Amino acid sequence: MQTLNRPQAVVIEQNCRNNIKKLKAKARSNNADCRPHFKTHQSHIVGNWFKEEGISAITVSSPQMAAYFTQYGWSDISIAFPFYKTQIHDINNLARNSSIRLFVDEVNKCRYLSSNLEHPVGLMIEIDAGYNRSGLPFQDLVTIDKLITEIKNLPNISFKGFYIHDGGTYSVKGKSDVQRIIQRDLEAFKFLRKHYPDAAYGIGDTPSCSLIDDLSPATEISPGNLIFYDLMQIEIGSCSFNDIGLLVRVPVVQEKVYSDECIIHGGAVHFSKERLIVDGNETFGQPVLVSDEGKISKIGDTFIKSLSQEHGIVSGLQALKKAYNTDPLKELWICPVHSCLTANLFDSYITLNNKSIEKRVLS
Amino acid sequence: MQTLNRPQAVVIEQNCRNNIKKLKAKARSNNADCRPHFKTHQSHIVGNWFKEEGISAITVSSPQMAAYFTQYGWSDISIAFPFYKTQIHDINNLARNSSIRLFVDEVNKCRYLSSNLEHPVGLMIEIDAGYNRSGLPFQDLVTIDKLITEIKNLPNISFKGFYIHDGGTYSVKGKSDVQRIIQRDLEAFKFLRKHYPDAAYGIGDTPSCSLIDDLSPATEISPGNLIFYDLMQIEIGSCSFNDIGLLVRVPVVQEKVYSDECIIHGGAVHFSKERLIVDGNETFGQPVLVSDEGKISKIGDTFIKSLSQEHGIVSGLQALKKAYNTDPLKELWICPVHSCLTANLFDSYITLNNKSIEKRVLS
Repeated sequence: MQTLNRPQAVVIEQNCRNNIKKLKAKARSNNADCRPHFKTHQSHIVGNWFKEEGISAITVSSPQMAAYFTQYGWSDISIAFPFYKTQIHDINNLARNSSIRLFVDEVNKCRYLSSNLEHPVGLMIEIDAGYNRSGLPFQDLVTIDKLITEIKNLPNISFKGFYIHDGGTYSVKGKSDVQRIIQRDLEAFKFLRKHYPDAAYGIGDTPSCSLIDDLSPATEISPGNLIFYDLMQIEIGSCSFNDIGLLVRVPVVQEKVYSDECIIHGGAVHFSKERLIVDGNETFGQPVLVSDEGKISKIGDTFIKSLSQEHGIVSGLQALKKAYNTDPLKELWICPVHSCLTANLFDSYITLNNKSIEKRVLS
Repeated sequence: MQTLNRPQAVVIEQNCRNNIKKLKAKARSNNADCRPHFKTHQSHIVGNWFKEEGISAITVSSPQMAAYFTQYGWSDISIAFPFYKTQIHDINNLARNSSIRLFVDEVNKCRYLSSNLEHPVGLMIEIDAGYNRSGLPFQDLVTIDKLITEIKNLPNISFKGFYIHDGGTYSVKGKSDVQRIIQRDLEAFKFLRKHYPDAAYGIGDTPSCSLIDDLSPATEISPGNLIFYDLMQIEIGSCSFNDIGLLVRVPVVQEKVYSDECIIHGGAVHFSKERLIVDGNETFGQPVLVSDEGKISKIGDTFIKSLSQEHGIVSGLQALKKAYNTDPLKELWICPVHSCLTANLFDSYITLNNKSIEKRVLS
C-alpha cells in the first residue's frame, strides 16, 4: 500500500464484487428486479462492477446524484426521496435523456409535476408499514387510491408501483428479528397487491436483502449499504467481517503513556459521528487486521471510543500492538460503523492494490 | 433568497464579522496573539474577513488544509494536530514558502523532523491538563524538558511554546463551569511558565475564548468554532442565537398526517450525526426564524428528532407552520448542533444576499 499521509478509504474490490453477485442471486431467486441504491458508494467505477453483473437500473437519493450517474451511462434511475416542487428544473434536465422515477405522496405534487414536466416520468408511492419515517400508511387505501387515480388521469406521469424502506431492520439483531420486521412490509405489499396487482413492489433495506430468503411479493430490491456493509450490519448479522467492502486506513499519531489508548488521525470528518454499542462499549469504529490475502479479522477488546473533528481515541493499545506486531504502532485499519456516511466523507477510494477509484464529492 | 432545490449552508456574514471583532477584542484585552482555527469554515473568502481585522496567523488541522490556505496568501500557519512522520513530504512543501508550526510529543519525531526537513519549522508541545485527549501531562516536567532540550539542540527545528485544547469546556454549561475547567489549563500554563518564561502559551477552545475575561497567562488564542458558533455553543452559554454565523436552509418534503412532524431534505450527510440533549430531547438541529433584518430566533417546542442519510424528521409541525405562517410548509432554517461538522459537509456557502462563498471541499 501507499504511504499513508492522511486517512484513506480503501475499497475491498473482491468483497464488493461478491456482494453484488449475492445481490443478483437474491433477486433471481425471488424473481425480482435489481435496482441497487448508489448513495452508498457514489462512484461510477464501483457502478461499473454492477454493470458487469448485468444490472442496468439504479436508485439514488437526489437529482444531483442522478445527474452524476447519467454522465456514466446510467439512464434508468429512481430518485428514492420524496419529490419536492423546487426540484422540477433538475428533474426536467434529467428526464430529457433518462427514464426517471420519482417518489410522490400527495395529489398536489402530482398535478404540479404533470403541468410542469417537459418529459414523462414514472411515479412510485412510498408506503409506511410501521417504520414511521416517510410514506403513506399502507392501510390508508382511500388516500392511496385517490393518488393513483389522479396519476392515471394526468399526462406526463405514470404510476409504477410502491416502495418501502424499513429502517426498523437496522435496529434489531439476527435473522428472525429481521424477518419479524420485514414481515410487516411484505404483509402490507400483499394487502396492496390485492388492489393493484400490476404495480411494482420495491424494498430497500440491507438486512432483509441479506438475510431473508423469501421476499415475495416484492418485485424489486434496491439495497445500498450491501455493497460495502459495515460494523452495524455485522452486528445485525447481515454479514461477516470478510464481506466488508470498505475500510478506512488511518495513521496512528500518538500512543498514550498513562492509558491503554492511542490517538489516530481519523475523526468525525472521516467517520461521521455514527455510533453503536458493541459488547457494552459505545464505539465509532472497529480496528481490524487485513491479511495479505485480504482476509479481515476483528481485533478483540479494541474500539474507537471517541471522535472529535480530526482525532479519534482508540481503546486497546496493547492488544493492537500485539495484533499488528509493530512498535510503535504506525497505522490501523478501521471497519466503520456506517459505511454510507463514511464513504460520503472521502473524495476518492483506493483499492488494496493501489488503484485509485474516483467518486462523487459532496454537492 | 434563491430557490431551494437542495439543502443550502447559509453564512450570516454580519454575525461572522462581529464574532471576529469580539475575538480581536478578547485577544487585545489579554495582550494575546490571535491565531484562529480555520478548520471550522475552511473558506478563503471567510478567511479574508479575518484578514480585514488585521489577523495574519492561523491554525489548521492538516497539511492539506494548510496548503489550501497558502494559496490565498496565508503564510504563518500552525498545524494543530500531532505531527506524524508520513507527513514529512507535505510539510517540506509547505515550509518552503511559509512559516509553519507543528505539534510534537516525542523525541523521536523531533529527530526525524530535524533530519528530514528541508526548511526550518517551529514546534509546539501540546499539553494535557486534564481533558485527556492528546498531549503530554503538564506535570511530566522530565519528559517535557527532555523534549525541549532535544529540540533546542537540533537543527531545522525550534521550540515555540505550549498549546492546550481543553474540550472539557464543551460539556459544561455557563461561565462559572467553563471558568472552572479552563482554570486547570491556565494553572498548568502558570506552572510551566516558571520553567519556560519565554515560551508561547496557546489555548483553543471556543467556550473559554467567548466567556472568560482573563485568560492570562495565555499568550495566544486560536478558537475555530467561534466564527460560526452553533446550538452546542448556545447551550453552553458561549453565545446567543443572534451570534450564529451558519444556518442550514432545508426544503420541507413531507408533512406527516398522523403525527406532529414533518420530513426535511436534510440528513446525516448535511448535519453529520452530532447530537445534543436540549430541554430533555435528543436533537440534531434547531429550527429557527430569520427576520428580514437577519435576526435569528428559536421556534419553541420544535427540534430535529432523527436523521438518516438524507432525511430529517422534525418534531413540532404545527408550531413551525404557525411561526413561518405558511401552509404547506416549504422550507426551514436550521441552527446546526455542531457547525464545524456541518460546514465540512457542504461544498460552498451562500450569504443572506445570495453571494456564493467558495470553500475547501473534503480531501
